This record gives sequence, C-alpha cells and structure tokens, in this order.
Amino acid sequence: MEIKAIQDYYPDQLSYCFGCGRLNEKGHQIKTVWDGDETLSRFTPQPYHIAIPGYVYGGLIASLIDCHGTGTAALAAYRNEGREPGTEPPFRFVTASLQVDYLAPTPLGPELEIRGKVAEIKGRKVISEITVSANGVVTARGRVVAVQMPEKMVE
Amino acid sequence: MEIKAIQDYYPDQLSYCFGCGRLNEKGHQIKTVWDGDETLSRFTPQPYHIAIPGYVYGGLIASLIDCHGTGTAALAAYRNEGREPGTEPPFRFVTASLQVDYLAPTPLGPELEIRGKVAEIKGRKVISEITVSANGVVTARGRVVAVQMPEKMVE
Repeated sequence: MEIKAIQDYYPDQLSYCFGCGRLNEKGHQIKTVWDGDETLSRFTPQPYHIAIPGYVYGGLIASLIDCHGTGTAALAAYRNEGREPGTEPPFRFVTASLQVDYLAPTPLGPELEIRGKVAEIKGRKVISEITVSANGVVTARGRVVAVQMPEKMVE
Repeated sequence: MEIKAIQDYYPDQLSYCFGCGRLNEKGHQIKTVWDGDETLSRFTPQPYHIAIPGYVYGGLIASLIDCHGTGTAALAAYRNEGREPGTEPPFRFVTASLQVDYLAPTPLGPELEIRGKVAEIKGRKVISEITVSANGVVTARGRVVAVQMPEKMVE
C-alpha cells in the first residue's frame, strides 16, 4: 500500500504553496509522511540552490523546515484526534514562527532528509523540532510554531 | 551617482547564492544598500511564490531575511572599520542562525521592503534585526546571526 503524504490530502485551493503544494509546478512539492513517531520529508536541491560553491543555500533549508513544520503539525493534529488525514474536518496549518540554526554547511548534491518530532500540541498550535541531514549528518536544526488556519479557509 | 549594493562587491565565485548572488540567473538577486542607519533591500515576489491564495510563501520571506541579514552584516563590517566595500580585505558572511516571526499574512503582489538594523557587532559576528513590509505594513520580523567566512574562502 502506498502511503499518501499529508500534502496529498490538502484541498486543491490550498495546494499551491511554493514549498509543499502538489499543484505548484514551480515549487518544491515536498511530501511529508510519518516514519514511526517522526515525520519525514526528502528533497534533492537543484544545482542553482547554491549558497557558496559546494553548499546548499540556507534560505532553501529554512523553506524546507517551514513546510515540513506545517506538514508535521497537520499530521500530528489528526493523530492527536485519533483519525486519519482525509477525514473531516480538515486540518491545515500556517507558520507563526520559524527558528533555524545552521550547524554546518550542507553539501549540495545529495538528497536531504528532513525529520520532525512533535514537541507540543496545545489548542490550535503545534510546535515541532526539525533536523535537516545530508549523507546522514545533521547540518541544520529548526523549530516551527504552526497555527491552525481558520476552518473557513480550508473548506 | 549610482549606489552599488553590497552584493555587487562580492567576488564572482561567491556571487551564485540563490538569494542574493548577482550571477545566479535563477535566484532572487536581492540587492542591499544603506538607507541612513538602516539597510534596505526590495523584492517583488512572483505569482508562484504563493502560500495560500493571495499571500506570500513564508519560506521566501525567510530567504529574503536570511540574505538581507548577511548583506547587512557585510555592510556593517565595512562601516565598522571605517572603510568602503571593495577595499581589502573583503568581508563576506554566512548565516549561523535565523529567526522569523510571521506577524500577519504578507499580501502577494506588491514589492516587499526588507529593512535591517545592526543590533550587535562582536568579533566575527554581526546580529541584525530585520523587518519585511508590504504596502507599508510590517508583516514579518527576523533576527539573523551572521558569521564572517574564513578569509581563505573569499579570496
């Protein structure tokens, strides 16, 4: 059975996000799934996603952490209610704040692995702790505070 | 007299950054200048830089803050030494950490104004406080800790 990513459940009109919208042809289209108690996305930067020669642009890493954070928040909200994505009412989150610590230069070339852990779910807010790895080495850490959109925006 | 942006002084091999490299044809190519005691960049998002309909993708805002922060750091480092960009030795910074608070959705369409203030210069580190505005309204605030690259990387 193929596991659908959380982004595959977003309503069409909310699927144009540059970072994770499946309908944005120019975007990154990241896909976020559960991997045990962690969430996982993968992304292979393009050669033009460069910072300095040989390394990935930090703004791209921030973008990946951002969208992985909102995807993690949505996955966590469904699991927290004991129901599957695709059931009603839908969850969709926006980012309230984003923190990124760049621990080491991220090599440009290999696929990046973005992993999230849910740190807190409280009311309409989900906080996640995120790592970005290349070749198995964590090069950046992030923290995303995501807030649930008003229901009227996700219908 | 046309004022050159700090990015116009970066050595060619360090001018491919996706956010601010003047030689990256696919990148944002932001340009950062002094405006009194503040630093200023401008950027007009493309229609595909969307988050939800009508609003700018938060990852792009993080990217703009990131590069505006490293540009601000370089401008501040020269001014702190009482010399002009283009004089030797060159300064070039990378991001150590990035914090973004999204205060309100940023409307997609108008040019964004990114302004920075130098909060601290200490050794090889420059911390800047940054705002992003659309139509004169601040929609995001950021804080960038930038660290000077080793000299051997900027020659």
